[in-house]
Amino acid sequence: MKTFLGKPMASERSIDWNLLPGYRWHENGQSTFSGAPLKLYQKLDRLFLQWAGERGAAEHRFPTFIPARELDRLDYFRSFPHLVTFPVTLDPSKDNLAAFVRGAPLDDAGHLQLAASAPIADVLTPAACYHFYIQFQDERLAQPRYVTTRATCFRREDHYAPLQRQWSFSMREIVCLGTADEVKAFLAGGRATVEGFFKKIGLPIEWQNATDPFFEPARSSKYLMQKLDPVKIEMVFNGDLAIGSVNFHRNYFGEAFRITRAGADAYSGCIAFGVERWIFAFLTHFGTDEAGWPVLT
Amino acid sequence: MKTFLGKPMASERSIDWNLLPGYRWHENGQSTFSGAPLKLYQKLDRLFLQWAGERGAAEHRFPTFIPARELDRLDYFRSFPHLVTFPVTLDPSKDNLAAFVRGAPLDDAGHLQLAASAPIADVLTPAACYHFYIQFQDERLAQPRYVTTRATCFRREDHYAPLQRQWSFSMREIVCLGTADEVKAFLAGGRATVEGFFKKIGLPIEWQNATDPFFEPARSSKYLMQKLDPVKIEMVFNGDLAIGSVNFHRNYFGEAFRITRAGADAYSGCIAFGVERWIFAFLTHFGTDEAGWPVLT
Repeated sequence: MKTFLGKPMASERSIDWNLLPGYRWHENGQSTFSGAPLKLYQKLDRLFLQWAGERGAAEHRFPTFIPARELDRLDYFRSFPHLVTFPVTLDPSKDNLAAFVRGAPLDDAGHLQLAASAPIADVLTPAACYHFYIQFQDERLAQPRYVTTRATCFRREDHYAPLQRQWSFSMREIVCLGTADEVKAFLAGGRATVEGFFKKIGLPIEWQNATDPFFEPARSSKYLMQKLDPVKIEMVFNGDLAIGSVNFHRNYFGEAFRITRAGADAYSGCIAFGVERWIFAFLTHFGTDEAGWPVLT
Repeated sequence: MKTFLGKPMASERSIDWNLLPGYRWHENGQSTFSGAPLKLYQKLDRLFLQWAGERGAAEHRFPTFIPARELDRLDYFRSFPHLVTFPVTLDPSKDNLAAFVRGAPLDDAGHLQLAASAPIADVLTPAACYHFYIQFQDERLAQPRYVTTRATCFRREDHYAPLQRQWSFSMREIVCLGTADEVKAFLAGGRATVEGFFKKIGLPIEWQNATDPFFEPARSSKYLMQKLDPVKIEMVFNGDLAIGSVNFHRNYFGEAFRITRAGADAYSGCIAFGVERWIFAFLTHFGTDEAGWPVLT
């Protein structure tokens, strides 16, 4: 579970993303990659996977939809109603489909006029690591568990910007479930690895405390708790773009999903990397010419 | 653009998917992979990518959502209203979000009670290759173009079955745009490669003509055209599961998206692989023990 700062963004070099070979920005808040930008995407994710491997994290590949019932255990819909995207299908009765087809499915503005929809019971993945807590629910862990996944995540925002703020984006996470000490040691080790890497390649990153983007934060007890006792530290590029974060969840997910470790609710934490934002930081700082990029190992 | 047969499915060996290590089936029609099944997933896709590379196909990574306006050019909503999944978000006004939060977002059946939704202008990718025709619209091709992508595709069905019929699944496609002869040569070469591979590893596959799953096919002129002049040939495992297909689109997409080649609407064709269905065929035919799997190169 990670967030990124909501401030407007500046860049060191001003790149015209529409002219970058192998990159395409879509007005609906998404990116297409091929050529050199795709190679950079793949190299970055291989680097994250290497770091995951160093911590013994087993890779998983999760699907797009998460049952709403599972997220409801986290009170997700009251905390982040502004961010969620729901997968909706049409009521499958012949009559309803025929009514949809007979009408004009699309109006002049390009908006769809749905007929009756089927019951909605799922959401599009909002954060990669949720899948793990759901999958491991009711487990009693005999040792700490280290896992990793890259998932396409979905967050509706009021504006989008190429690579920086997208409706759908790629999130790599390395997750640990264990005792408080096991999770803290994992996070400290992970942060040291990433910090060393930034130093080695010379990418200017500041580490800053942050909070999740709650709906009506002033009314949210969870937000207030995060303010009082910071659990999220972001890797902030250029003073305004969080390209990743280190998150200590305490026993929040362990309790919600009844995962135990050493006789108590499991603690958990994750190190999260926003792949598109890493690409943004790389291209902005090192330039769009591959020859100027640091070696990624 | 590819379809799979709508018949009920049998299997050679009856595998209890709930007991297969590294595999997890979700009731909402999706799969999670880790361990050996994930390795098989990755090896299969590397094989498809190798075949794509042999045809000089450049890799692309596309996002999840496609603007409805683009698919409407294909009369998609009238042809396949029963298959589509729409990404829906809440109307972002404070009052509307507050109303959603105040209500019970989830009822006892696990269904979400949405408040007012924001305008719906996109769909979740129904077939990987659509992205290419949209991206290349209005282009005049000086030579045939070969491209490949793997995309998560979404099709609502009236029932789901592990790896065989999923709401979301992985589709690798190798696509050619060019003259009719260029596309036919590409499809013939691709089919020969795949056919040789099936023979080499001993996977029982029959090639069968098929049609796309149109809504009310008897009333669809496009369906009737496909019946009269077959353009889709499926790789059918075990007599009932299409694990891939070879598709000749004629100049259908070239015309709809104004892509030209040699002074006329471009022709196009694709070779499509359903990754989860390949995994099903492999595990069913060669067993769940890795040691029994053929080498995938």
